Amino acid sequence: MDTSAFATSFRADLPAWVSDELADVPDVLATDEERMALVHRLAARNFREKTGGPFAALVVETETGRVVSAGVNLVLASGLSMAHAEVVTLALAQTRVGGWDLGAEGAPARELVVNWRPCAQCYGATLWSGVRRLVVAGEGPELEHLTKFDEGPVREDWAEQFEERGITVAKDVLRDEALAVFADYGRSIDAGESVVYNARAQGAIDL
Amino acid sequence: MDTSAFATSFRADLPAWVSDELADVPDVLATDEERMALVHRLAARNFREKTGGPFAALVVETETGRVVSAGVNLVLASGLSMAHAEVVTLALAQTRVGGWDLGAEGAPARELVVNWRPCAQCYGATLWSGVRRLVVAGEGPELEHLTKFDEGPVREDWAEQFEERGITVAKDVLRDEALAVFADYGRSIDAGESVVYNARAQGAIDL
Repeated sequence: MDTSAFATSFRADLPAWVSDELADVPDVLATDEERMALVHRLAARNFREKTGGPFAALVVETETGRVVSAGVNLVLASGLSMAHAEVVTLALAQTRVGGWDLGAEGAPARELVVNWRPCAQCYGATLWSGVRRLVVAGEGPELEHLTKFDEGPVREDWAEQFEERGITVAKDVLRDEALAVFADYGRSIDAGESVVYNARAQGAIDL
Repeated sequence: MDTSAFATSFRADLPAWVSDELADVPDVLATDEERMALVHRLAARNFREKTGGPFAALVVETETGRVVSAGVNLVLASGLSMAHAEVVTLALAQTRVGGWDLGAEGAPARELVVNWRPCAQCYGATLWSGVRRLVVAGEGPELEHLTKFDEGPVREDWAEQFEERGITVAKDVLRDEALAVFADYGRSIDAGESVVYNARAQGAIDL
């Protein structure tokens, strides 16, 4: 087989504006609300910058409040359909710590903070990452209604499945603020300023 | 916030042995069985090379049988928990074609060929990739029993959910050959030659 045209690596890069956005944020984010407020800020900027959808995430050391990584949805910027905010942020954290297991023996307990219940893909990505806690702004059909994204089939007992694997779940942290970002994004789609990039969303789901 | 220690990109690279392994394979793989036989060959070599688990995948143009990308599980080699065979292979295909949507208007229909039903994460990753067809060697608890991997919660109607989104599913292609690779891997774990790298697998699931 002639493999000369095959890709042998893939990569994704955070846009420079993310560091700019973090410049005036304190080094320690003590509460769930402080962590989520930063996520919302990054999500709101991400779609305006046309890097990707209105999604962002942080990996944070639960006890100290120190941020390990900050990421945003990079599907459009990277050309990779898997580059959702959760996958990007977990991969950046694993790159920084130098290993695939964010829950490795001896490491501080780490958590993923994200602005909605993960989609079908990111649900699994969170399971395998080693984080010990997941903090979400909310769950429910509002996301799909406001943004037109298909979140995919996720089981009703999704939170219990995390808990069974030793990952605690905190919900409804700055939920209204999350919906405000999604509504802004929805308006930008209607105005033709943003794109929905779910591969199978076109006519396939009944919203 | 001091972000000087933050990672701002992540990447994964295929090991050189993958190209070597493809050298004697024909350019066109006309049947599902020919495609899956190559997947099994890559999966069997991957864990022996200690690049990752016993999993491999191809993205193939369904009609022509031309291979767009070949990938393997790179969790150990890349240090990224998301680098399962499906995610790697889809990302390599998207890197090669230059965009996140493998089902883009005007492109030939493409399919993902993989050696078991995707885990919870890769199930979603396949949904969003734009492939129009999924070919698996099998499904069922044998994988978890033989390899000790936790595949995560996937809905009973997983195949129907693909079909509803315009992705056809072909099952049971060289199923026994898949189980033979998993059994070999299981023996290599028992012999202390391989590692199970599921973050939450330790004691969390009852196998």
